[in-house]
Amino acid sequence: MGLSFKSSDSAFFDLFSQSANHLVAGIDLLAKLVAAPREERAVLRDSLHEVEHEADVTRHEISKKLNASFVTPLDREDISELAGVLDDCMDYADEAGDLIVLYQLEELPAGIIEQVVQLQRCAELTAEAMPGLRKMEGLRDYWVEINRLENYGDRIYRDMLAEIFEAGLDPLTVIKLKDIIETLEKAMDKFEALANTVESVAIKES
Amino acid sequence: MGLSFKSSDSAFFDLFSQSANHLVAGIDLLAKLVAAPREERAVLRDSLHEVEHEADVTRHEISKKLNASFVTPLDREDISELAGVLDDCMDYADEAGDLIVLYQLEELPAGIIEQVVQLQRCAELTAEAMPGLRKMEGLRDYWVEINRLENYGDRIYRDMLAEIFEAGLDPLTVIKLKDIIETLEKAMDKFEALANTVESVAIKES
Amino acid sequence: MGLSFKSSDSAFFDLFSQSANHLVAGIDLLAKLVAAPREERAVLRDSLHEVEHEADVTRHEISKKLNASFVTPLDREDISELAGVLDDCMDYADEAGDLIVLYQLEELPAGIIEQVVQLQRCAELTAEAMPGLRKMEGLRDYWVEINRLENYGDRIYRDMLAEIFEAGLDPLTVIKLKDIIETLEKAMDKFEALANTVESVAIKES
Repeated sequence: MGLSFKSSDSAFFDLFSQSANHLVAGIDLLAKLVAAPREERAVLRDSLHEVEHEADVTRHEISKKLNASFVTPLDREDISELAGVLDDCMDYADEAGDLIVLYQLEELPAGIIEQVVQLQRCAELTAEAMPGLRKMEGLRDYWVEINRLENYGDRIYRDMLAEIFEAGLDPLTVIKLKDIIETLEKAMDKFEALANTVESVAIKES
Repeated sequence: MGLSFKSSDSAFFDLFSQSANHLVAGIDLLAKLVAAPREERAVLRDSLHEVEHEADVTRHEISKKLNASFVTPLDREDISELAGVLDDCMDYADEAGDLIVLYQLEELPAGIIEQVVQLQRCAELTAEAMPGLRKMEGLRDYWVEINRLENYGDRIYRDMLAEIFEAGLDPLTVIKLKDIIETLEKAMDKFEALANTVESVAIKES
Repeated sequence: MGLSFKSSDSAFFDLFSQSANHLVAGIDLLAKLVAAPREERAVLRDSLHEVEHEADVTRHEISKKLNASFVTPLDREDISELAGVLDDCMDYADEAGDLIVLYQLEELPAGIIEQVVQLQRCAELTAEAMPGLRKMEGLRDYWVEINRLENYGDRIYRDMLAEIFEAGLDPLTVIKLKDIIETLEKAMDKFEALANTVESVAIKES
């Protein structure tokens, strides 16, 4: 087993930033996808898949580094937790893109586009916050803002849910839209879980 | 980091009891909500949200105390696990209340009311069991009874699921009811997960 | 608390093999169930429940042994993780069998039968791989192949999902089929999670 010491510190934080940057890239593609006409979405979904795959590779590197590290800059379980939740955010974003293409919906409701805008903001804030893990600095604003965005996203989600049942849509379209907005809501919940993990790590390490 | 020693023991158990008491209060509100006429449900949903928020605060206190404690009365991971699962029970109860209001259903099927009665019983048993964690006493009856209730709840859930598809309801109503009974079933599963966690802690500590 | 030493090693690996063998037996019953005419499915569902119950017993033995063991052949959290994910695979297979009987569908789409064939292959590979945990030998082929099968299963799942919405089925049948194929997909995801856990344990222990 190769051991890495102080050097490992910086490496883990670089990998967290890399994961967060994959998230930004992936959710930007999801934003393009929900705004695109139906026939242009499949190409964007494929690019989103590629980013999701890169994110998997980064997560894999974090696990390998963790297993090969004798000392770690944060508790081992916190490093796995952070890597895992970053991955969950990406997976739900990727799944949402998939479903939108699969269900071949025409123009999407404004609420779905609004959900993705919130996810974009969460991804950007996460990418900005990751470097703060090194010195546990400036993280408070991040988790407070993510929690605010998640509450707002939750309202959008509930309004959408009520809306699709009252819009006089055919049942199959309701099932499709419900599936998509629920998947986007799960992505948002994972961003909140990530912020909560960062918060508890910050409290512990401070 | 402020350290707390023996004092922390009693504090953790008090917080677990507090969480369980929030659960009792929350699920009593859910029981009132499912029995109430449609137009009176929103107010009860709001009170349920408030209790859910108080439960979040308690869970937060447990995490903060855990991060600030040098010695703990139970293994750290068991304390987080217990706090997390107590929170999950509350979240699903809260979500069920939300959906019932959101979907604006008229009178609810007897099966849903029956599911909530089982959840009430689980919450009461949990609140009665929490003090037993101090001395690991009298917990066996608790987890055996919760498992019995979960099996019974499972049968109610399956019967309901078959029923709503055979009742000749319109598809949108089926989707709404399926969503509600599944959320209540998830709450029940979390009570079982909680009982299983208590059991494994009890076995370990005895 | 009874302590077990070196002896415990072999016992844990035997229990993992036992869990995997329950999985093989359970998913073979699921395969029979999906191929059987409607009226013969309930009996197979009952046998599947029995196997699922035996798997619960085995998982319980692993937890008890873990709590009673002073030294363990693998990290404690890895042992719980492996036991938990093996159990998840079984639970989703059991749930799928339940839903198929509950929803009283006539002949099932070929895609569902194909999903179960992939699950059978995963269960067999898992049972063959478990003994390799003792010496961490020959596990690489296992996790590579499971990941390949999961990717293939994912394609089957997506094709099915698109199909059921385009087949001109009534909405209630779409809801039922969607529920079943999603549950089978979750079982497949759990086999991948299991393979990933085995991989990270193997890397750590090597």
